[in-house]
Amino acid sequence: MSFSFDHSQGPTLRHDPLSNRQVYLAPRRAARPNDLVNYRKIDCPFCIENSSLTPDPVQQWPSLEALHWKSRIIANRYPIVEVGDPATEIGGVAQSAMTTQSNMHAYGVHDVVIESPDHIESVLQIPFDDWVGVWTICQQRMKQLSTDSRITWATIFKNGGVQAGASLAHVHSQLIGINCIPPTISAKCDQLIHRPALFRNILSDANNQDRVIHNYKNFVAIVPPAPRQPFEAWLISKEPCCFFHTENQSCVEDVARFTQHFPAALEHLLPGASYNWWLHQFPFISSSTLHRAAEHWHWHLEALPRITPLAGFELGTGYHVSTMPPKTAARLLRDTGCWK
Amino acid sequence: MSFSFDHSQGPTLRHDPLSNRQVYLAPRRAARPNDLVNYRKIDCPFCIENSSLTPDPVQQWPSLEALHWKSRIIANRYPIVEVGDPATEIGGVAQSAMTTQSNMHAYGVHDVVIESPDHIESVLQIPFDDWVGVWTICQQRMKQLSTDSRITWATIFKNGGVQAGASLAHVHSQLIGINCIPPTISAKCDQLIHRPALFRNILSDANNQDRVIHNYKNFVAIVPPAPRQPFEAWLISKEPCCFFHTENQSCVEDVARFTQHFPAALEHLLPGASYNWWLHQFPFISSSTLHRAAEHWHWHLEALPRITPLAGFELGTGYHVSTMPPKTAARLLRDTGCWK
Repeated sequence: MSFSFDHSQGPTLRHDPLSNRQVYLAPRRAARPNDLVNYRKIDCPFCIENSSLTPDPVQQWPSLEALHWKSRIIANRYPIVEVGDPATEIGGVAQSAMTTQSNMHAYGVHDVVIESPDHIESVLQIPFDDWVGVWTICQQRMKQLSTDSRITWATIFKNGGVQAGASLAHVHSQLIGINCIPPTISAKCDQLIHRPALFRNILSDANNQDRVIHNYKNFVAIVPPAPRQPFEAWLISKEPCCFFHTENQSCVEDVARFTQHFPAALEHLLPGASYNWWLHQFPFISSSTLHRAAEHWHWHLEALPRITPLAGFELGTGYHVSTMPPKTAARLLRDTGCWK
Repeated sequence: MSFSFDHSQGPTLRHDPLSNRQVYLAPRRAARPNDLVNYRKIDCPFCIENSSLTPDPVQQWPSLEALHWKSRIIANRYPIVEVGDPATEIGGVAQSAMTTQSNMHAYGVHDVVIESPDHIESVLQIPFDDWVGVWTICQQRMKQLSTDSRITWATIFKNGGVQAGASLAHVHSQLIGINCIPPTISAKCDQLIHRPALFRNILSDANNQDRVIHNYKNFVAIVPPAPRQPFEAWLISKEPCCFFHTENQSCVEDVARFTQHFPAALEHLLPGASYNWWLHQFPFISSSTLHRAAEHWHWHLEALPRITPLAGFELGTGYHVSTMPPKTAARLLRDTGCWK
């Protein structure tokens, strides 16, 4: 899609006063390549032989000096958010285009995590040790962002497949840090403030209702109580913990395991199905209200298959619709035998 | 997708305590046919020659007695919500499977609006007078639902195309009435209670910011201030009005015009693009809190193109991402010349 308008315009965060919804408007993203939807062969910018097409990495595994990297993190060329013009930043806080509540500069950092030097499409093709390397550099990058006082919240997310919003086939994730707290995180904090035992209850309910998929050393993989799609699965930290970046090596390995087990099980049940996952950490900067939720937060990873598109009922009402009872989904996921 | 579980289980509305999100779980929907995704020829149940495959209509145009109908409303065979077993209903209120907050019977009426007797796929193939007929029977059905004390809110919605969640190609919409107020409507009521001039401001801002697409007699078509996708458009009633079903014939004709103008313009700009629309009416039963919003409500129709799938960032954060400035979208939509 290409229309005549100013694509160079910087990103803004806009507010819809009626729904109280926020929209990132990022005109420069309109120009991004799409080898999955257009079905045309492009020179894949993520392949190691095309490294010259992309900016220098901000993280790399084995190391920034190594010529033969296995994974790397680079700046996204078509970001949803941008740091913006330093000239418009005062005292470390982006002032720039902030005019009204309905139109403020979309501040932040948006990276791409290239998960393999080779043109492979699935995380299942990545050897486990290299996959742990991917999560290790994500952890390092997340640690960097957590020390940046202008970044309030950050996440890692994957769009796996066309139905999940992927535009390039080469296996990759994205990492984003913004200067606000997203609606989904605010909602969880609100719930937790009123019910400090919420995560404990979620874990015990999953156990009592036969929705546990797998017990890892530090985490539990469960089907949530009200899954949005068949086979939605969450990886939840067993103990309260705000952040992924403060976790030890054993935790990183558990995350690497889950993020190969889940796509393997889904592929077994629904070959070719798209899926997303994203990390739900606590905000980096706690307010007096949020503070009461911090000690009860269990950071978690939500993995959502994309089987049925969100249709008019879902988008018009805000309800989700699924067809598979959560207990059934847990049994079917377990029975694939992919969790070891 | 077919897995071994009890598909006969009635629908429930489930609550996710962490996100405070609600999910309709409707196992019987898993069996619904899908001629768009599976690309296999099915005996289309919506074609006039297959009328015997579907239940008797609850509304029909020209009339219930006519043999040669142009449009009709029938019960959805794979509903998201169901009236349920009358034996479990006490005093007109569904008690049935309501056990905990997290698992209650999904009460309601779910219809299909068959918009043509012929196997056509686009509303643009329907002659205007017949298309007014479709909206006329929708209005009649909505009037019926509004007098049912067990129905709190109802909507009409369309899934136009695979990306918008359509499963059958034959041109159709859906009509649903439920016993609760959806999150999107609650959010709008909340905003309106605090800002009674909200709709007036939305209309004047659209005018001042060059986001008006077309002026109808009773309505204005605008690009909203923070569109979720390029070319999102809303049809808003010029005067405060809670319900579509209380409107006169001239209004029904305006709605019919918009709902052909919008897909025509979108088709002109992005041939083959999917889209949804849905009606945002006020709840039928007003509470003491809601009451303050009722006199300021302007019922409206939201039309959302489905160009970019909702990806991990959108679903993980609750923000939307778009690439086209609203003013540009309004200009491009206007310039198609489809609005007359």
